[in-house]
Amino acid sequence: MTAPTPTRDDKFSFGLWTVGYNGADPFGGPTRAALDVVHVVEKLAEVGAYGLTFHDDDLFPFGSTDAERQKQIDRLKGALEATGLIIPMATTNLFSAPVFKDGGLTSNDRAVRRFALRKLIRNLDLAAELGAKTYVAWGGREGAEYDSAKDIRVALERYKEAFDFLGQYVIDKGYDIRFAIEPKPNEPRGDILLPTVGHALAFINELEHPELVGLNPEVGHEQMAGLNFQAGIAQALWHGKLYHIDLNGQRGIKYDQDLVFGHGDLHNAFALVDLLENGGPNGGPAYDGPRHFDYKPSRTEDEDGVWESARANIRTYLLLKERAAAFRADPEVQEALAAARVPELGQPTLNPGETVADLVADRSAFEDFDAASYFNAKGFGFVRLQQLATEHLLGAR
Amino acid sequence: MTAPTPTRDDKFSFGLWTVGYNGADPFGGPTRAALDVVHVVEKLAEVGAYGLTFHDDDLFPFGSTDAERQKQIDRLKGALEATGLIIPMATTNLFSAPVFKDGGLTSNDRAVRRFALRKLIRNLDLAAELGAKTYVAWGGREGAEYDSAKDIRVALERYKEAFDFLGQYVIDKGYDIRFAIEPKPNEPRGDILLPTVGHALAFINELEHPELVGLNPEVGHEQMAGLNFQAGIAQALWHGKLYHIDLNGQRGIKYDQDLVFGHGDLHNAFALVDLLENGGPNGGPAYDGPRHFDYKPSRTEDEDGVWESARANIRTYLLLKERAAAFRADPEVQEALAAARVPELGQPTLNPGETVADLVADRSAFEDFDAASYFNAKGFGFVRLQQLATEHLLGAR
Amino acid sequence: MTAPTPTRDDKFSFGLWTVGYNGADPFGGPTRAALDVVHVVEKLAEVGAYGLTFHDDDLFPFGSTDAERQKQIDRLKGALEATGLIIPMATTNLFSAPVFKDGGLTSNDRAVRRFALRKLIRNLDLAAELGAKTYVAWGGREGAEYDSAKDIRVALERYKEAFDFLGQYVIDKGYDIRFAIEPKPNEPRGDILLPTVGHALAFINELEHPELVGLNPEVGHEQMAGLNFQAGIAQALWHGKLYHIDLNGQRGIKYDQDLVFGHGDLHNAFALVDLLENGGPNGGPAYDGPRHFDYKPSRTEDEDGVWESARANIRTYLLLKERAAAFRADPEVQEALAAARVPELGQPTLNPGETVADLVADRSAFEDFDAASYFNAKGFGFVRLQQLATEHLLGAR
Amino acid sequence: MTAPTPTRDDKFSFGLWTVGYNGADPFGGPTRAALDVVHVVEKLAEVGAYGLTFHDDDLFPFGSTDAERQKQIDRLKGALEATGLIIPMATTNLFSAPVFKDGGLTSNDRAVRRFALRKLIRNLDLAAELGAKTYVAWGGREGAEYDSAKDIRVALERYKEAFDFLGQYVIDKGYDIRFAIEPKPNEPRGDILLPTVGHALAFINELEHPELVGLNPEVGHEQMAGLNFQAGIAQALWHGKLYHIDLNGQRGIKYDQDLVFGHGDLHNAFALVDLLENGGPNGGPAYDGPRHFDYKPSRTEDEDGVWESARANIRTYLLLKERAAAFRADPEVQEALAAARVPELGQPTLNPGETVADLVADRSAFEDFDAASYFNAKGFGFVRLQQLATEHLLGAR
Repeated sequence: MTAPTPTRDDKFSFGLWTVGYNGADPFGGPTRAALDVVHVVEKLAEVGAYGLTFHDDDLFPFGSTDAERQKQIDRLKGALEATGLIIPMATTNLFSAPVFKDGGLTSNDRAVRRFALRKLIRNLDLAAELGAKTYVAWGGREGAEYDSAKDIRVALERYKEAFDFLGQYVIDKGYDIRFAIEPKPNEPRGDILLPTVGHALAFINELEHPELVGLNPEVGHEQMAGLNFQAGIAQALWHGKLYHIDLNGQRGIKYDQDLVFGHGDLHNAFALVDLLENGGPNGGPAYDGPRHFDYKPSRTEDEDGVWESARANIRTYLLLKERAAAFRADPEVQEALAAARVPELGQPTLNPGETVADLVADRSAFEDFDAASYFNAKGFGFVRLQQLATEHLLGAR
Repeated sequence: MTAPTPTRDDKFSFGLWTVGYNGADPFGGPTRAALDVVHVVEKLAEVGAYGLTFHDDDLFPFGSTDAERQKQIDRLKGALEATGLIIPMATTNLFSAPVFKDGGLTSNDRAVRRFALRKLIRNLDLAAELGAKTYVAWGGREGAEYDSAKDIRVALERYKEAFDFLGQYVIDKGYDIRFAIEPKPNEPRGDILLPTVGHALAFINELEHPELVGLNPEVGHEQMAGLNFQAGIAQALWHGKLYHIDLNGQRGIKYDQDLVFGHGDLHNAFALVDLLENGGPNGGPAYDGPRHFDYKPSRTEDEDGVWESARANIRTYLLLKERAAAFRADPEVQEALAAARVPELGQPTLNPGETVADLVADRSAFEDFDAASYFNAKGFGFVRLQQLATEHLLGAR
Repeated sequence: MTAPTPTRDDKFSFGLWTVGYNGADPFGGPTRAALDVVHVVEKLAEVGAYGLTFHDDDLFPFGSTDAERQKQIDRLKGALEATGLIIPMATTNLFSAPVFKDGGLTSNDRAVRRFALRKLIRNLDLAAELGAKTYVAWGGREGAEYDSAKDIRVALERYKEAFDFLGQYVIDKGYDIRFAIEPKPNEPRGDILLPTVGHALAFINELEHPELVGLNPEVGHEQMAGLNFQAGIAQALWHGKLYHIDLNGQRGIKYDQDLVFGHGDLHNAFALVDLLENGGPNGGPAYDGPRHFDYKPSRTEDEDGVWESARANIRTYLLLKERAAAFRADPEVQEALAAARVPELGQPTLNPGETVADLVADRSAFEDFDAASYFNAKGFGFVRLQQLATEHLLGAR
Repeated sequence: MTAPTPTRDDKFSFGLWTVGYNGADPFGGPTRAALDVVHVVEKLAEVGAYGLTFHDDDLFPFGSTDAERQKQIDRLKGALEATGLIIPMATTNLFSAPVFKDGGLTSNDRAVRRFALRKLIRNLDLAAELGAKTYVAWGGREGAEYDSAKDIRVALERYKEAFDFLGQYVIDKGYDIRFAIEPKPNEPRGDILLPTVGHALAFINELEHPELVGLNPEVGHEQMAGLNFQAGIAQALWHGKLYHIDLNGQRGIKYDQDLVFGHGDLHNAFALVDLLENGGPNGGPAYDGPRHFDYKPSRTEDEDGVWESARANIRTYLLLKERAAAFRADPEVQEALAAARVPELGQPTLNPGETVADLVADRSAFEDFDAASYFNAKGFGFVRLQQLATEHLLGAR
């Protein structure tokens, strides 16, 4: 079979920290050397990506001098120019250095919070300079292991203070940048603030500039809470808040695996791609931002394996896109969807302008409604539909 | 030791379906006979509750005639009058009957949705008549097992349609009732709409009358997603949306156990009671609504065990309240909280009126800030604090 | 694409309680009428099964008279004769009736234990009469919700007492039957005895007749503990204890979903079929017993959906078998397996007859071994292998 | 309240890597400096421990010269002599260095397996020299992320080969050492070989010298699979295989938290201490080995917090021991246990010498047994028992 070939219109992007992951984990040190940013940009161009993303500390180590920092920025710019790659997104590392051991924007230590804000603003300026349109905020250290160690309501207040301040800054500067909060339930903290897509969506509503803040959900993060990622993305879309997305793979509720996209829950990956690509009005894409892979090449691999894994992400996405297109185009699927009354859910429950009085007056809705007729009859045919999805996923139809 | 004695001011309430649970589960039928509502009210008065809550189908079986229904309502009213118990909350069963096999308000089948709305309105009228101030909405069947079987965005639209309609109805009728959504991640559906406190909070913001809709979080439901219940309640309080609460016990991520409160994660139960009772301004209660036990007496018990279990819920709550008061009053705890800088998180990160320019001009915040000084020093003392909490919980201080 | 067609040599079997599931769950009653056993046998023959399995209470309700019981047995025998279906496995229901509320063979109540043994023996006799070769023991009620309510060591002693007694009985009777223990971590009890494949394997070693007792692992049961089902089956095979298998689908750590096989973790289902079909010596089957589907047609379905779901189990199994055969036959896969040194694990670590002294004398093993050469090199290529598996699974190669 | 004071008879021990943990995790580097082994021994003596345990690489870094290694051994010996602490257990690090990226004893790479064996033997010799009686084997890297990357049956064969070889070595050398396998379900591998207590118990039965190999279960590891740790320990005791134990805290199914003992599931910690201390014949201890804390002082702490956390482990254990003693001594608890028929499970189900024929002849066991009498009666009183346990745990009785 001919492999689908990525183009830049596919908007595949990778974090510098992803292909650059050195293999260190809680029980072992690095198994791979660091990759130079110029080399990464060249290789990503080769595998078909259109964009690179980064944390400040990925590009220049925490504690770099201004000169060291600028040198790395210049090298990155050169590589972008040479390859045509862009920087669609950037973010700040507020979680690795010891100073952030209790978090950055919500550390109990006020001096740390002020330092974190400054670090963030500094890299936000760089993001704007590099043309990034999205600024991701993963607050991985914003949380606690112990319930009395963190006053959650006050922590949310500090988080809001930070986002309100940053929102105003972006407005004042005229930056064409939106923030995207990345939820995660736990790890590295026992419990993290804004643990799911839902908690983050709710939080955004309390901000001064909610229009500037959306989400960057990650497959594995929701699945670490046993939640359905595709359903979470659908809710984020419903709220108009899917600003960015992190694709990867996770095999159930355990530590954050960051596997290649599709190497985890394949059914849900299929449903996700179907939603992103075919869930919009008229069946077009429901999301037109970057398809960003936030994964880690397994610690067992050498550099060849790194690039194999980068290509695997892209290839699986494109294969699932093909499968989803075939699924939607299959008349038997369309018939099964209709039989399962999936489109009927699109009809309002009430008639146009119907009042409670009208509804109460409609005896067919209650008094004459035959609830008993649903016993042993009127099946929804959901299993058949799922089997059709399974067979399309398996390439068997 | 003298047992703490409940009073009606403690606002302990129980669902009719809780003590009335007959022991049926997926692998076995009832082990106990149904309890009559009058008997339940009398016994609850005896154990120290102030309120009873119910679903329509708990009081009169699905399909009852109007006369049967009214008879049960009258019997309930008589028992309330005799005992002084009240009905602080009521709710609708939109999940047990076959007609609701794909849900009620978001069933793919429009006729079912209309029937569900009518059933809900009918019981809402009864709730108002009985003086309930909260109307709970647990959408346990609103969901799916299979990703293509339910268009989540459209389902949310239908859910919103229903709450908007019901909100207007409550306004039109002048009912002194607020709705409280009860999130749950799964069971009986593979994935349920609005799976966590966060998702439900986000949803409420999209409603026409968000002020009429809050939350009824349940201990076990959040813990079934591995989430920290106390942290979720804190976020709900931050949004001003803790309208009601369901207390019970759960031992980790598994089926919905509905154990007695405190028979699950005891640390988190302690933190929860501490938050509810001591988390308000000036250290008073942060929540003044019913302490509602939504649990199931284990299937192994007979009726004596049912009432033992009801008393156990109350007794554990009161013991934890005592422990939490002692924890807050302990000078060593106060000192440890200060050392852990927990109160410092209450200080805004920014100075009053501070702008980005001001912050950037503050060299102490960044250029002169000694981030390296956090290595091997400036520990937060969180473990000591948790140990103090543990020893208070164990009654050892 | 032509659908693979099942034959009786495929040994597909179904439990009477599976297709016969009436849809009742913890939050709702039946949505389907009971199916008559004769009808079930006829339909199963039609969908391509070779066998039916049953609990005593599936065939004749708990408390049936001898005459009622015999009538149902005769009807079953007639249907088997008419269709050619066989009974490869039978089992006892020691979990549904109130008498078993604390379990059967390990109930704290000795009279219940004696009753359970008698009920088991009675159905074992019937199993032998019907030609079953495997007798499954799922001890779903053998467990506890509370740690002090059950002395686990003593419970294991009682469990052993029962299996020793039953083993002797089978020997005395000359029955050609082996027992297969079915582990499950929880539900309906908070914690169940012998919660995983491993715990059950260990238990068997303590029995008087371990050769008569093996395992009947179920996909969803291991996955409810977050365990890798294929890996568990491999260990069971290594111990020579895979006597029977329950195939179904589960989407992560939650309540027991009993979905159609392949409607849960598809990667692991692929690996499982690959192991069962191609994992034997010379690449043949590693297991030649029944492919038994222990699933529940979703509660949303009517009887048509029941048979659709039965066919879906079979069809997915056969498709995965095709995919696994193609995977094994692909030269690129063979090359990738070799590159990943998968076959090299088959070589003993020690040379033939090598002693510790010999090993210590081999300087190439330690003193001259270049451990540092594994940094940034000598990658295993596991991600590439997984991508090849993914693409075969997707039917894309 | 007076704190219980540890004595060396309590046999509290700590790993050098536990208090020595530098705070590095997947998302951040060290927050604390390394601790010198002599200092650690002195401090542990001060907090009341009787023993230190270590991996080779904890004492002398991977790749140390013989001289460096010997120097550290001598320094350790000096400290032991000065303080009277002993080395009850030692173990090998086969998981941190890049060479072990696919494991040690079951790496697909045979040269790695031979190197791992040599490294293990070398440290085993040191363990014997230092008087350790237990040699722990945690195979944290023995596993896979991808199902086709590891042939599990062959991996078990290699694992067996190693333990058989090591067992023979210990016999040949006359070492007074037993091996203790430490199971873990996942992290750092996606799935680890011998994922639970059960799987490891089963494996041991296949060894040449099973008497030399037992278990070292860890609280958090079993709880990461949602399993009941106390129940697992009870099964290990039943098999006579509890050779060592790792005490710590875990809050549910997530990454390996390694919290202080009692800072996780407190109910289960209480039940565990009750089992260890009061579960033996005549109510004495069921286990007399080291109470070994295998935990990590939280990354937020400085060195003061490290020693606070060490003391917290000990203090919580001793408090739970007091609570468990009071629980067992309470006449109301004894009465409740009897009412719940907990001791009745100790009675054999069969009469002495009873045969199947005898049992079948006993009409009281079946024909005349009133199974229906268990409906709505004969409750077990388990909830009351759990409430008594809860109140003892809370120090409220």
